[in-house]
Amino acid sequence: MQKDSVGIVETKSFTFAAPPGGLALECGDTLGPVTLAYETYGTLDAERSNAVLILHALSGDAHAAGCHADDTRVGWWDIMIGPGKAFDTDRYFVICANCLGGCTGSTGPSSTNPATGRCYAMDFPVITIGDMVKAQKALVEHLGIGKLLAVAGGSMGGMEALEWVTAYPDSVRAAIPIATTSHLSAQGIAFNEVGRQAIMADPDWKGGNYYDGEPPNRGLAIARMIGHITYLSDESMRKKFGRRLQDRKELSFDFLTDFQVESYLHHQGDIFTQRFDANSYLYITKAIDYFDLAEKGGGSLDRALANVTASFLIIAFSSDWLYPAYQNKEIADALRAHNLEVSYCVLDSSYGHDAFLLESTHQTHLISHFLRHIYDEHVHGSHCR
Amino acid sequence: MQKDSVGIVETKSFTFAAPPGGLALECGDTLGPVTLAYETYGTLDAERSNAVLILHALSGDAHAAGCHADDTRVGWWDIMIGPGKAFDTDRYFVICANCLGGCTGSTGPSSTNPATGRCYAMDFPVITIGDMVKAQKALVEHLGIGKLLAVAGGSMGGMEALEWVTAYPDSVRAAIPIATTSHLSAQGIAFNEVGRQAIMADPDWKGGNYYDGEPPNRGLAIARMIGHITYLSDESMRKKFGRRLQDRKELSFDFLTDFQVESYLHHQGDIFTQRFDANSYLYITKAIDYFDLAEKGGGSLDRALANVTASFLIIAFSSDWLYPAYQNKEIADALRAHNLEVSYCVLDSSYGHDAFLLESTHQTHLISHFLRHIYDEHVHGSHCR
Repeated sequence: MQKDSVGIVETKSFTFAAPPGGLALECGDTLGPVTLAYETYGTLDAERSNAVLILHALSGDAHAAGCHADDTRVGWWDIMIGPGKAFDTDRYFVICANCLGGCTGSTGPSSTNPATGRCYAMDFPVITIGDMVKAQKALVEHLGIGKLLAVAGGSMGGMEALEWVTAYPDSVRAAIPIATTSHLSAQGIAFNEVGRQAIMADPDWKGGNYYDGEPPNRGLAIARMIGHITYLSDESMRKKFGRRLQDRKELSFDFLTDFQVESYLHHQGDIFTQRFDANSYLYITKAIDYFDLAEKGGGSLDRALANVTASFLIIAFSSDWLYPAYQNKEIADALRAHNLEVSYCVLDSSYGHDAFLLESTHQTHLISHFLRHIYDEHVHGSHCR
Repeated sequence: MQKDSVGIVETKSFTFAAPPGGLALECGDTLGPVTLAYETYGTLDAERSNAVLILHALSGDAHAAGCHADDTRVGWWDIMIGPGKAFDTDRYFVICANCLGGCTGSTGPSSTNPATGRCYAMDFPVITIGDMVKAQKALVEHLGIGKLLAVAGGSMGGMEALEWVTAYPDSVRAAIPIATTSHLSAQGIAFNEVGRQAIMADPDWKGGNYYDGEPPNRGLAIARMIGHITYLSDESMRKKFGRRLQDRKELSFDFLTDFQVESYLHHQGDIFTQRFDANSYLYITKAIDYFDLAEKGGGSLDRALANVTASFLIIAFSSDWLYPAYQNKEIADALRAHNLEVSYCVLDSSYGHDAFLLESTHQTHLISHFLRHIYDEHVHGSHCR
């Protein structure tokens, strides 16, 4: 185990909102009971003032750092979470939960519907980023935390961070939205919709009722391949693959795999089907499509941010074309109009949208200083640690 | 009929390369007989010196201008071809042929294989841009034209234009490659491969043998939807659709069509299946993936262009991210190193890759002057018309 690792971790779970009450959703339905799978790293201080909630992207889960006892693979943001890292577990109590609608321990379409005893499948209600955050708020309260030091996440996680500061302005001191947007663009909706169409066109999808048989792996793999193209950049694909051939010296003149980039995509599609539920993919991409922060202000981003009090570090990446820098800057500009404390940085990277998962050095520098500043200034005044 | 229209046109066909000879293909196979569907507009002059070959993109066909007698729809580049237009049919004899591998009259996978009496399907050989151009050369010779005044086309058509000037340097005076590249990028290959996977994942595809039953329309529609996203730009999609809802005032909270951009994609996918063959889509995208001009020079674009004598007008569009301006500029730079006459222009447009089909004003200005210059200088000396 490396000395900067959080070590062996365990996924816990929290269940709440039992019927008949249940969690009131934006669509008008209620959902219950609701379970969130979550992990924590570091120690909550006596004042319960050092908690940071990490928010994952579309395909992420609660396992953000360290290793499970039965698996050597580290969590999805292990480069950022641990002793001495950006989210320094010697200083902060870090929480990460699988989102509502997910398929790795939290309640989602593959969970059992208590009303029928079978999987929800497409009877699962259409959830929103707001619903995901509402469930996270219940978990945070359950952990005895009245005010989070920070919420932080990239991509969909950044949307959730923005939802947190507007829905619960008194419950969060700072937010770190990364590679995100206040509303998904038409292009982003388009890519998500084609992915969903690929899943629903797979005959194994069967209207979502595939849990007793073969899942729609071909459709899900195609959706994931489309996603992966959008997570990289033209430049990173050129550097990583170019036109290099895969396991051959000449073109096949066949419909086999000729190029390395094809092999990479097939592999990414295949391995995704082993760990992700196709219906969860439908529901989570729909939640991303629906996210539009300005809607909270009747169409005005300015009005939507009226009650926000948090401080912000907003990070964008130069080659990210799925959540381009200008979309991140729109958020920074709107927040600054409210005289909020906002740092906005565009990091130079060729990795495209994936940069938030890969570029640890510069992100660490920015995030560790920002968090220390928030902690020292707002929580412990002049008290230096 | 508008006065700048070429009027009622007819698709003709030319059949050649009968077995046992046949057309020798780059894969090593021979193919025959080969039929090319083509149209012509304007009149070939007595010296046979005013012929311009128009080269279509992935989903195009021979019907580039005017109307068919039984159909009011104009050809795919009618804004550019006609009396007084960029390709002025009062001056030039314009030819356009459906590409080899196509499905609108030229020999392709949906054609009858004379060896079996059934459709070729996946027994059709894997063809290349070079093979397509070789077939076009036979058509041009059949029309009695020794030297084309120009070859011109966008996207895949631009690749064919580049192939023409390198494979048949003595047979073409000028080339107008538009929104194209000397080699498809890894990102471009990736998008094409996901489209092919969507087609081949459709159970109606049946290994390509669907001609007696239902064609793989769902897979082909998904491939087309992916294509359409890449033909537009983030900006054009924002302007055209934004987050506007389709036929509803509020989100559906269902997996129906919420957004106009989704409705647009569904429509584009659906109509494409009515006019295009899925196997042709596989073969033509593969030909595009395989195109790499530098391969002709043993990996050196410089050496590949050593025998080129043509003059060039190369046009790129500012918002085209599928065939970005820098890839067009690479061609211009490589040609200039050979002291060839090269004009390179990046036209400002928000339409993305589709701009070559839509932006008539600036393209017309550039192309009409360039063609007139080539015609007056190189063909008729000081003879002014």
